Amino acid sequence: MGAGGRAAALCLLTLGLTFHVTALKSQLFARFGGSSSSGDSNISYETLYFVQKIDHFGFLEDGTFKQRYLVANKHWKQPGGPILFYTGNEGDITWFCNNTGFMWEIAEELGAMLVFAEHRYYGESLPFGQESYSDSKHLNYLTSEQALADFAVLIQSLKSTLAGAQHSPVIAVGGSYGGMLAAWFRMKYPHVVVGALAASAPIWQFPGLVPCGDFYKIVTQDFAKSGHNCDANIRNSWKAINNVTSTASGLQWLSEEFSLCAPLKSPVDIIVFKSWLQETWVNLAMVDYPYEANFLQPLPPWPIQVVCKFLAFDSAVSDHQLLRGVSRAAKVYYNYTGSASCLNTSQTATGSLGFLGWFYQACTEMVMPMCTDGVQDMFEPEQWNFQAFSDECHAMFGVRPRADWAGAVYGGKDIASHSNIIFSNGGLDPWSSGGVTRNLTGTLVSILIPDGAHHLDLRYSNARDPASVRAARQLEVKHFQQWIKTASTPGL
Amino acid sequence: MGAGGRAAALCLLTLGLTFHVTALKSQLFARFGGSSSSGDSNISYETLYFVQKIDHFGFLEDGTFKQRYLVANKHWKQPGGPILFYTGNEGDITWFCNNTGFMWEIAEELGAMLVFAEHRYYGESLPFGQESYSDSKHLNYLTSEQALADFAVLIQSLKSTLAGAQHSPVIAVGGSYGGMLAAWFRMKYPHVVVGALAASAPIWQFPGLVPCGDFYKIVTQDFAKSGHNCDANIRNSWKAINNVTSTASGLQWLSEEFSLCAPLKSPVDIIVFKSWLQETWVNLAMVDYPYEANFLQPLPPWPIQVVCKFLAFDSAVSDHQLLRGVSRAAKVYYNYTGSASCLNTSQTATGSLGFLGWFYQACTEMVMPMCTDGVQDMFEPEQWNFQAFSDECHAMFGVRPRADWAGAVYGGKDIASHSNIIFSNGGLDPWSSGGVTRNLTGTLVSILIPDGAHHLDLRYSNARDPASVRAARQLEVKHFQQWIKTASTPGL
Repeated sequence: MGAGGRAAALCLLTLGLTFHVTALKSQLFARFGGSSSSGDSNISYETLYFVQKIDHFGFLEDGTFKQRYLVANKHWKQPGGPILFYTGNEGDITWFCNNTGFMWEIAEELGAMLVFAEHRYYGESLPFGQESYSDSKHLNYLTSEQALADFAVLIQSLKSTLAGAQHSPVIAVGGSYGGMLAAWFRMKYPHVVVGALAASAPIWQFPGLVPCGDFYKIVTQDFAKSGHNCDANIRNSWKAINNVTSTASGLQWLSEEFSLCAPLKSPVDIIVFKSWLQETWVNLAMVDYPYEANFLQPLPPWPIQVVCKFLAFDSAVSDHQLLRGVSRAAKVYYNYTGSASCLNTSQTATGSLGFLGWFYQACTEMVMPMCTDGVQDMFEPEQWNFQAFSDECHAMFGVRPRADWAGAVYGGKDIASHSNIIFSNGGLDPWSSGGVTRNLTGTLVSILIPDGAHHLDLRYSNARDPASVRAARQLEVKHFQQWIKTASTPGL
Repeated sequence: MGAGGRAAALCLLTLGLTFHVTALKSQLFARFGGSSSSGDSNISYETLYFVQKIDHFGFLEDGTFKQRYLVANKHWKQPGGPILFYTGNEGDITWFCNNTGFMWEIAEELGAMLVFAEHRYYGESLPFGQESYSDSKHLNYLTSEQALADFAVLIQSLKSTLAGAQHSPVIAVGGSYGGMLAAWFRMKYPHVVVGALAASAPIWQFPGLVPCGDFYKIVTQDFAKSGHNCDANIRNSWKAINNVTSTASGLQWLSEEFSLCAPLKSPVDIIVFKSWLQETWVNLAMVDYPYEANFLQPLPPWPIQVVCKFLAFDSAVSDHQLLRGVSRAAKVYYNYTGSASCLNTSQTATGSLGFLGWFYQACTEMVMPMCTDGVQDMFEPEQWNFQAFSDECHAMFGVRPRADWAGAVYGGKDIASHSNIIFSNGGLDPWSSGGVTRNLTGTLVSILIPDGAHHLDLRYSNARDPASVRAARQLEVKHFQQWIKTASTPGL
């Protein structure tokens, strides 16, 4: 998922609709993602389709669509072996499937079947085919509640039709927005899943639950500890950009220095440029993995440390020197492989995420306040402005976000009556700002991975994995085994 | 709520649409109801309105409507005193409010505020005003999920705006369909209510969960134990009706014998007549209270015993003698006060229930299979025919029921992971066929009231109450106190 919040507000408020989509695309792609495609390429699964109701919560719209899901049962011990069910998030399910190495690595040990279910409106699971995104009428069934109902109906069908699956305990697994869905799935459909692993799931990143500035504070801390003066120089860079771009020659210099595909020309271009840079730093914080990986972009191990080598100036540096450093830093992210001929400010990541769908979700249920103050974080100060955000959403989709709905339906911080959910969070991951980072009860447990970025635990294991993520994965499997055992023991 | 099942199928299959509504009206009125209006007439409450979203689960329809709710805070101990929240069912909320004596009687002891929330599409809470029932488009937001969301949003608003209510534990209370809502409310919104009393709530009266014949078996048992040969004579009466009405003079005789307002003329009339009689026996089973009461009709104490005095024939009785007895029995129900000038086969009860709304609900989510075999019950055999029922619903509302949805969304029999729900059931109540009549866990408890009819425990106390219902109410209050205590104890 992408943050539909602050940066979106920034762009949408200022610019026209056509631009928004492009600019948002980069932000949304950037902010969330699945796992890396590194790891085992020998995974094998069957692609299947399930006929779902377009509307689970009303009966007027009785149409159906084909939901894609992937099944791997090589290691499944039937009858009754467990099912690990990936609650697909905002993207092509094959991408999540191919990149959630953790599930593939534990399947044999657990004798588990793997199922990856695609989220409606993403990938191939389009309720109205090519019309699905044509207007707000067709987008009306893109909600988390509908997605959870899809998962429930799919699982109940699998269990009743698949030989040997009738008594199989099902465990929900997801990362990022998929992790939120996994947690909510267990909360709302505990009769369907015996437990959930919610990796890097910011279920509290909603109005009134956590400070809006925490997200960018964590980004800043990642840079602060990765190199001398690194955060301070980025904090200074915004003013330097404003200074340098105040002249035509400065604009040209900056465009050349950054090897931009399209030179900066207008004030709008400068806003987009800064937004793009900001997203770049956010992305780096999300993917600050200890080994070479290709998550949003191909990157070296601990990429922020590499970036910060170019940003180690003392305070007396000139604007031009500072921005040259920023440019080199950005190119670590955009051109690690050396294959980029120029940098495109409308793009910050590659991947299979559905930006427009996520933005619709951010404009409806997934209202996630973000803000910066330039003091505790290294960004230009900007307050959270719900009304402005709502107006942008209305202009774009003809709908308005409901700030309190997610809290009302999913419980906000009052979730202690639920059970069997693991909330894992990485200490480096800015999304941990909205995550559950303490044990709530004996069965609603938090696992912290201090050296981990965005759902590192869901990725394939790696020789350079820190001990904390190895321990996290072990603990997660232990919980899975406990849930399976309890579910398989009559009378417990 | 009314059973949208078997008897509905009977009529709808056979007859035209105009008729259905009238015929259904009687059935639906008949089968479910609130409590009697006997008891304390000194209750006093404030009538308020809350602005609700018409659609909680989609963002295209952004309209609102006013939901009515009633508040009585005379005994409320603020700050933090508990709130007993009646989850309104299919009727005018003032009717439920005036007739749920149990809540009024325990308010002082608990220091509780009482809130009665009207269910959308009933009473004054009409999402589209007078248009609400105009077509399936306007009816589209009449679902239990929307109603539960209304309750959740209302409570969260009350707690955030009402001085002293912020930390008030809320307990859901409901009877019949309202009891189902109370149970589901606790399951889906445990962050909003600390517990629920689900009185006579047939949450398992859905496809595949309980035998479809149990409902009518219980009706039959009530008659069997209330008088010599009572059930056998009713079982024989259907054939006798067929015999007698095979001639024009027989039709006339029967019409006069029953003092029918409109004499029977056609085969359709005979079907309606039998359906009406069947509903009469069902109603009597529901309201077989130990004292004089006026629930669906004014009735004597233990009305089935009174009815059965007219049906105590030995087997050699003639058709005409038998039907004369049936007629006298029916008049116990329809003319106990002696004020009825004739009997109307399109009506079996008075009250403030919304029959059309409930029938829509039965035609969508609330699919409750019913069947009879004429052996274990005293009715004409009729199988449950989902396809036929679905076709009737489609003809009537343009929608089709989804047989498996209620089970998928509310968990069917797999609800053991929830907590703090009391399921009370009366042994005389046919709806106990679909109720939870055993303890599922230490906190999902069943209370049986062997001498109780339909949610007797929610009624005002009465000197003739059996010991079982007195004990039930005491136990219910004890659970309430425990939930309140736990909610008010930090760290528990």
